[in-house]
Amino acid sequence: MEPQTAGTLPVSPPIGLTIAGYDPSSGAGITADLLVFQAHGIFGTSAITALTVQSTVGVGAVQVLSKELISETLETLHFDLPAMGIKIGMLGGIEGVAAVANFLENMRTGHVTKPHIPIVLDPVIRSSSGASLLAPEALEAFKESLLPRVDWITPNWSELALLVAQEVQSMTEAEMAAGALQRMYPSLNLIVTGGDQSQPIDLFYSSNGEVHHLPGEHIETRSTHGTGCAFSTAFLSNLILRKPALDAARAAKTYVAEALRRAPGLGGGRGPINLLWPLR
Amino acid sequence: MEPQTAGTLPVSPPIGLTIAGYDPSSGAGITADLLVFQAHGIFGTSAITALTVQSTVGVGAVQVLSKELISETLETLHFDLPAMGIKIGMLGGIEGVAAVANFLENMRTGHVTKPHIPIVLDPVIRSSSGASLLAPEALEAFKESLLPRVDWITPNWSELALLVAQEVQSMTEAEMAAGALQRMYPSLNLIVTGGDQSQPIDLFYSSNGEVHHLPGEHIETRSTHGTGCAFSTAFLSNLILRKPALDAARAAKTYVAEALRRAPGLGGGRGPINLLWPLR
Repeated sequence: MEPQTAGTLPVSPPIGLTIAGYDPSSGAGITADLLVFQAHGIFGTSAITALTVQSTVGVGAVQVLSKELISETLETLHFDLPAMGIKIGMLGGIEGVAAVANFLENMRTGHVTKPHIPIVLDPVIRSSSGASLLAPEALEAFKESLLPRVDWITPNWSELALLVAQEVQSMTEAEMAAGALQRMYPSLNLIVTGGDQSQPIDLFYSSNGEVHHLPGEHIETRSTHGTGCAFSTAFLSNLILRKPALDAARAAKTYVAEALRRAPGLGGGRGPINLLWPLR
Repeated sequence: MEPQTAGTLPVSPPIGLTIAGYDPSSGAGITADLLVFQAHGIFGTSAITALTVQSTVGVGAVQVLSKELISETLETLHFDLPAMGIKIGMLGGIEGVAAVANFLENMRTGHVTKPHIPIVLDPVIRSSSGASLLAPEALEAFKESLLPRVDWITPNWSELALLVAQEVQSMTEAEMAAGALQRMYPSLNLIVTGGDQSQPIDLFYSSNGEVHHLPGEHIETRSTHGTGCAFSTAFLSNLILRKPALDAARAAKTYVAEALRRAPGLGGGRGPINLLWPLR
């Protein structure tokens, strides 16, 4: 199913799950991800890891939720509305990381043998306005407990640099860092996003050795809130719809570019993009 | 703009705000309300008052948020993304009631004289599965501080009975109770919803003396999660789109009926309805 031609919702659409932060202004996090899922004909469910107060201008208060509440939410959804794919975004801190790692481990070692479902991790560490969205002391647990348990990770250059603790200032350095991370976690596949660079080229780096440069176009707009969230959730959506990974990445890039082009121009800062455009 | 013919999102769509609980399963509360807004061509923002763990089977844990966090969220949104209409749903307890009452008071007495915007209160007191969604000790504050500050209230029969402390077991008793509440709060308009009755007739009872019975049809489905939330938000959406109130109520009934008819059939209990049907 192409988002461009989404028709009537099927009687039982596939279910997608986003585990992420909450943004009251609907630009990023779960409120945005749920629209991305719907734009792809997928019924979205969500588990909030951290509440933020934010608008298009920036991030104010951040309140992380307890490990217990996040875990109970994940288990409740899993037993009633099992997801065909999971996107993981902002985790906030140690508790969020632990709750998600436990859930992924329980799911994979559960009594019921389940078909493998794709899991995409968007390593949200800092907001584009500079706010810390993952406590610094949680970074090691984040790497050790999550990177071996997810299929895809979608860092931008600065997130990749933090993950491998080396500089990423050029596409050559991005390839070296992607290779280094991939050797540490052999089952991990990467899409290193370059949407925030002057040459917006994404680097597709799969565990089976495929490497591709996915060129994009620079779109001049003030409305860029949540583009990273939207890309990773759109990529997951396309995997849920059984597109091959490279096609899924290309479709997600097209989706985000069009959402930027059709942004509604709201707010005084970095406004939201138009996530439901395929339905309009 | 009719939801049936929703085309391209206008360059700057109106903004709607929902103040309500959070449902991870996207059936009710803010995750559902945001879809209702989008289905009407409105950009939705939200302020969570309480986190719930729930699925189609029922409500588990409930964690109310602090007055401070709710207030900061409402103010942040108000200054960057001012709403053209507000829907108020689950408030959880005293803190949620106080935060919302203060916000409404500040908004109306603020420095900047703003055009009057419609405010619709859905008095969420108990979930249809029986869970308490407003602390009993908050009921008096709820009535005293909110009912004078909203334009519309959309109780069902049992919520109306609690608000006026008298029995509501028939349409005659519903009219008497609506009249009693209306005399206590002279600027208040009511739509008493009857969707959960065998004869699903809504009672439209406006402060200027208009009384109408709005007949509906009984739709046989297991997927009825969040119909009350959807009705009140659809009604507000139509008010934001400048429909007269009676037309707005009728359009909201039609919208919910079709969402029930097109429900995707998910989950083992009371499944979600199809809130984005006008875009599909």
